[in-house]
Amino acid sequence: MAIVPEGMIADLLTRKASFDAVEKVFAAMAAGDAYNFPVVREALGHEDALYGFKGGFDRAGGVLGLKAGGYWPHNLERRGLINHQSTVFLFDPDSGRVKAMVGGNLLTALRTAAASSVSIRHLARADAKVLGMVGAGHQAKFQLRAALETHAFEKVIGWNYHPEMLPGLAAVAEEMGVPFQAVDLPGLAEADVIVTITSSFAPSLMAAHVSPGTHLACMGTDTKGKQEVEAALLGKATVFCDEVAQSVSIGEAQHAVAAGLIGAGDVTPIGAVINGAHPGRSSAEEITLFDGTGVGLQDLAVADAIVETALARGLATVVPL
Amino acid sequence: MAIVPEGMIADLLTRKASFDAVEKVFAAMAAGDAYNFPVVREALGHEDALYGFKGGFDRAGGVLGLKAGGYWPHNLERRGLINHQSTVFLFDPDSGRVKAMVGGNLLTALRTAAASSVSIRHLARADAKVLGMVGAGHQAKFQLRAALETHAFEKVIGWNYHPEMLPGLAAVAEEMGVPFQAVDLPGLAEADVIVTITSSFAPSLMAAHVSPGTHLACMGTDTKGKQEVEAALLGKATVFCDEVAQSVSIGEAQHAVAAGLIGAGDVTPIGAVINGAHPGRSSAEEITLFDGTGVGLQDLAVADAIVETALARGLATVVPL
Repeated sequence: MAIVPEGMIADLLTRKASFDAVEKVFAAMAAGDAYNFPVVREALGHEDALYGFKGGFDRAGGVLGLKAGGYWPHNLERRGLINHQSTVFLFDPDSGRVKAMVGGNLLTALRTAAASSVSIRHLARADAKVLGMVGAGHQAKFQLRAALETHAFEKVIGWNYHPEMLPGLAAVAEEMGVPFQAVDLPGLAEADVIVTITSSFAPSLMAAHVSPGTHLACMGTDTKGKQEVEAALLGKATVFCDEVAQSVSIGEAQHAVAAGLIGAGDVTPIGAVINGAHPGRSSAEEITLFDGTGVGLQDLAVADAIVETALARGLATVVPL
Repeated sequence: MAIVPEGMIADLLTRKASFDAVEKVFAAMAAGDAYNFPVVREALGHEDALYGFKGGFDRAGGVLGLKAGGYWPHNLERRGLINHQSTVFLFDPDSGRVKAMVGGNLLTALRTAAASSVSIRHLARADAKVLGMVGAGHQAKFQLRAALETHAFEKVIGWNYHPEMLPGLAAVAEEMGVPFQAVDLPGLAEADVIVTITSSFAPSLMAAHVSPGTHLACMGTDTKGKQEVEAALLGKATVFCDEVAQSVSIGEAQHAVAAGLIGAGDVTPIGAVINGAHPGRSSAEEITLFDGTGVGLQDLAVADAIVETALARGLATVVPL
């Protein structure tokens, strides 16, 4: 089996490879060639940790396995380790034998960034110029970098509940040669694309803050109760997602569904747009919204790409079994 | 992290160590110090394979992780590999970092054998002399070896649906210095302890075949629909199990519960007997029945013991992460 430790991921996984892997597996999911398993998620009652498994099988890509790990909130303060800890294990779908182990921390950040970028590529207007960011934490920087690589934005505007964190986001934009401006929430009406990436339990971005023709990628909501945008916005928008079952239960769409504004049938997997089965954006005035909840198959697809690159470059540790 | 490949398990895991680990974790489960996570089990629609995850956390023992793998029915014929393929992954419960990977095939056979032996140690009569076996396949040999090491039986009697397989079982008994005799099902009334280990979907062993004072360990039923013994036998017996929730849903007890002969409250986790919270056998005439469905914590406990031995002997492959 091949082992690719966490420390090697930064050198092995380009944002381009991550984008391609996520786009491809979204398409496979929508075509019925790949599916995610039920998610296991447990509060351990130890170190306040959340731990679990996200597995899946991509028949088209020949990828089988799981990401195991979770969130250890005291890691940084108690051990100097990052709080999110996860590892991906890949299996040979033909024989069931374990095939590879890949550090899952940076990988998770990059596959989440890739998902919003895939949605921008397929749903934003071609003439989009202003990128709006809601959220300015660790993950926001990944989303921003990936978005700026995907589309030629001319300006980034950003809002965060703690405005003192915005300079971190500004530094990323400026590093990539794009000017940054802090705005209030109504100021986001200037944006052509908005990425939300907070862990909020109450909506920040309201329908009134969003102009016609905007594409939104809501990436922060992955749990019952979390919410980034006003439910009415999903009622006005054409809603897309990674996986419908997750979107309507633990994603941003949960609130619009609970309020009766939309039903599961109103949410389209973005893979259908990638496949050409759904036309995607229909006009320059339409608001499109991608609800990215994060699925195991994204992790597996990106891990598989990493292993392939590591083996090709002779960089994986190969352990006989 | 430490890697202990499948090929090393036979040298590292004694039946004694497996017995001790399983006994200890059953006790921790009954004390509320260890619990199993929901099981994920998927028919992949590829190679007719079943694949999934059995995870758990033993707070008392500091063991966290999962067994991943399943059943690939064409492995032997198509690839010369065994059909059951699984791997155990252990995590550090304090930090969430991956700690070890252990080949899970032989380990699964030994922990299943350990479970019936633990039940014999705690529930069989001290003067038990005759061991009865129902089933004579690959796993039956493991159960028989472990049982003969646990208790000084003077004779083994065995029945199998395909009697031509019994010589394989006889060879194990004779290798361990105990005479073997093939019997018909009514002949099992001579047994003081009976281990059933078949993958049957209809009962073989009837209540009439079992004498007062017998201890039964039913080890084959781990799926809805499977059944080894007549449901009436559970109505007559005092029923124990590894985990109550599994026993009454996918274990041997499912049928007696469905027939209204017993309820979940009538099934006692064997850990309570090990802990001393339940007195166990109450008389020489009582029939005791252990319903062994197999839980992830057994795999994790045994894998942890293997890793400890491998590290102590300098035999694990240690990979920096």
